[in-house]
Amino acid sequence: MTLDSTHQADLRSWVVSANTSETEFPIQNLPFGRFRPAGSMAPWRVGVAIGDQVLDLHQALSAVVWPADIASLLQPLAAGNLNAFMALGRGASRTLRAALSKALSQGSAQETALAPCLLPQTATEMTVPCAIGDYTDFYTGIHHATTVGKLFRPDNPLLPNYKWVPIGYHGRASSIVASGHPIRRPQGQTKGSADTPTVGPSQRLDYELELAFFIGAGNPLGEPVPMAQAEEHLFGVALFNDWSARDIQPWEYQPLGPFLAKNFASTVSPWVVTMEALAPFRSAFTRPADDPQPLPYLDSPANRASGQLDITLQVWLQTAAMQAAGEPGVCLSTSLVRDAAYWTAGQLVAHHTISGCNLQPGDLLGSGTLSGPLPTQTGSMLELSMGGKQPLTLPNGETRSFLADGDTLTLRGWCERPGFRRIGLGTCAGTVVPARLL
Amino acid sequence: MTLDSTHQADLRSWVVSANTSETEFPIQNLPFGRFRPAGSMAPWRVGVAIGDQVLDLHQALSAVVWPADIASLLQPLAAGNLNAFMALGRGASRTLRAALSKALSQGSAQETALAPCLLPQTATEMTVPCAIGDYTDFYTGIHHATTVGKLFRPDNPLLPNYKWVPIGYHGRASSIVASGHPIRRPQGQTKGSADTPTVGPSQRLDYELELAFFIGAGNPLGEPVPMAQAEEHLFGVALFNDWSARDIQPWEYQPLGPFLAKNFASTVSPWVVTMEALAPFRSAFTRPADDPQPLPYLDSPANRASGQLDITLQVWLQTAAMQAAGEPGVCLSTSLVRDAAYWTAGQLVAHHTISGCNLQPGDLLGSGTLSGPLPTQTGSMLELSMGGKQPLTLPNGETRSFLADGDTLTLRGWCERPGFRRIGLGTCAGTVVPARLL
Repeated sequence: MTLDSTHQADLRSWVVSANTSETEFPIQNLPFGRFRPAGSMAPWRVGVAIGDQVLDLHQALSAVVWPADIASLLQPLAAGNLNAFMALGRGASRTLRAALSKALSQGSAQETALAPCLLPQTATEMTVPCAIGDYTDFYTGIHHATTVGKLFRPDNPLLPNYKWVPIGYHGRASSIVASGHPIRRPQGQTKGSADTPTVGPSQRLDYELELAFFIGAGNPLGEPVPMAQAEEHLFGVALFNDWSARDIQPWEYQPLGPFLAKNFASTVSPWVVTMEALAPFRSAFTRPADDPQPLPYLDSPANRASGQLDITLQVWLQTAAMQAAGEPGVCLSTSLVRDAAYWTAGQLVAHHTISGCNLQPGDLLGSGTLSGPLPTQTGSMLELSMGGKQPLTLPNGETRSFLADGDTLTLRGWCERPGFRRIGLGTCAGTVVPARLL
Repeated sequence: MTLDSTHQADLRSWVVSANTSETEFPIQNLPFGRFRPAGSMAPWRVGVAIGDQVLDLHQALSAVVWPADIASLLQPLAAGNLNAFMALGRGASRTLRAALSKALSQGSAQETALAPCLLPQTATEMTVPCAIGDYTDFYTGIHHATTVGKLFRPDNPLLPNYKWVPIGYHGRASSIVASGHPIRRPQGQTKGSADTPTVGPSQRLDYELELAFFIGAGNPLGEPVPMAQAEEHLFGVALFNDWSARDIQPWEYQPLGPFLAKNFASTVSPWVVTMEALAPFRSAFTRPADDPQPLPYLDSPANRASGQLDITLQVWLQTAAMQAAGEPGVCLSTSLVRDAAYWTAGQLVAHHTISGCNLQPGDLLGSGTLSGPLPTQTGSMLELSMGGKQPLTLPNGETRSFLADGDTLTLRGWCERPGFRRIGLGTCAGTVVPARLL
């Protein structure tokens, strides 16, 4: 992908908060999300984050006399329908980005007309970015797969298919919630050493640090997407927490995979950072010399050259005690996507559709837990506590093997590279609340 | 559930084809589906099958002066939105059934007004009955699980969790198609004895004989549905074919379950038979004396008394050669749901939501393959051919271990009981077409 004027580091906005060094949403980012005035019951509107403001695209459509092609692209967004815009594909995304970048730049003739279309982000509440028809979770984090595999199979942690097949499974779309939604501790059957299983709240509630890839243009049923076109079907990226009940999963998951252990909730961050905004933050996809090279349907020159995403991820935990004491959370881990992911987002699209499966605009592909190779880079409590055997001691003296009621878990992510403005993915947070017993 | 006048065997309709002995859609049935004139691009309308006709509920709303409560229930249906009607729950379903039964009965004052609202079914085409947000596939067929388990683990066919946990996994909703849609043979990675996997069309394409349970009223995220209320969340039943690629699955499915082996297509029959219509066709749910009794959250007096469905299922195969010769298909198996299913539909709802997972109107729960205990009662080619080792010889001399291009696979189902009119589920058919290579 070529870089253009929207990526220039010296580009500044007339929205002054977008020009500060700490903002995640400079004019080089321009992510999409759905918002409404906080506490209202108004319909969700599509907006673009700029500094600490949201540009309301419903208002923006009529505030400015846009060129006909731009007005046409803004039409579905003004109607609150991000999916319909996603369906238009990467060309639409590139064109609208260029227009919004220009309109929000310092010296823009549209400043006066668009300024009244801004709301402070603090005055809004947000929901999931789009309607998510289907959600698929992958397992691309090879260090996660290895560490978790070791807990079950010390001598043979990675299964033989792992380096050939981008392992994935279908997840539950209905229980995906936006950042901030409380996470109720799930109940289910568990079986330890007892003769019969017991039913009750999970005692091993965990998070998983993932990226969400949102599908843009779909593919018809029966028509695989070739690797060379796979990236054209990606709209953008958000943060994703695949909450997991580690005690429910081992008893239920054979032979058909995780079910109740995963379907009680997943949290997604509200702003989708587009593939266009991520263009400067790509790096080569390589395989260790001893590993098999990807099969032809998972290989392309572009994927080799720049298939990986340069995103830094962090996990933060704030316990109820920390919150009560006014203490900020503690950082549990920091990892790099390119060190963690064995498969690229493009490869996930090509693999998902090789069967003929149809992807649709707004579908969500989870990356799987993106743990780096070091213990300080692990993306789940299961890994940090070695399956619960080595509880973490937090700075305030509390210990955790898994999550406790009242814990707030927050994912963060950003991209940085010399010569470019840093852009952020925002936050993906959830607080654990006690189980509701039958 | 109590039986009422809508179930009386001597009730007859002024739609004369509904009174024939061979119809699947007598006035005692009244299933819902979505149709349009064949070959048109008109919006899908909701209709009710009666004999060989469809009652168009869009026209029916305005053709008759309905009581206010009935007009209100018909409103979403007249707008083509079956999901919105499903969301209203069993009370709405009971009320509308009574009104439609009365209006379509012999001697009804509405005959003259409603007769113009009928279309011959042969003049329509149909789609999936509703918008399917999420699809979950269960594994309730214990004989299927045992036979398939024996192929992999001769000494230990059933895993230890099977008799405690209604095993299920999330499936792909986007690729569910209506009866009649061609089924393109999927491609994927397979691995036999070779060092490296190969990619190509599946050589072991199979069907699975299942029921689809459609959810009516949903439950909020975080709030399990108690067993005593589980049936109130079921709207109705259809036939379901969970097409499966038996050579893709073994290589991809560890550790997270089936993915490409299942997501290329599933076929559902177009008419949803409501739980009200099924009321006369229920039987007791029992457990063999040596088996564990269901855990309390999967148990209720009503489930014990009448949790099982009395439905007979059949699988028919017509090869391309049979079709060319004008020969009908051959019946591969006949089974009874109550002999096949280890868990009831109500138990599936209670289990699915025990984690707090939210079900939504129109969600589809697959039963899993409903094979009876005998070889002539098996619901997949994998079982009939013993994993491909014992090819079937068909009456015309052809042999099959798995499905060939051009094969048409049709599921049928019906309910019968002395003293009641036989009602049918219609047909669920698909023809295999060759793979589309990349």
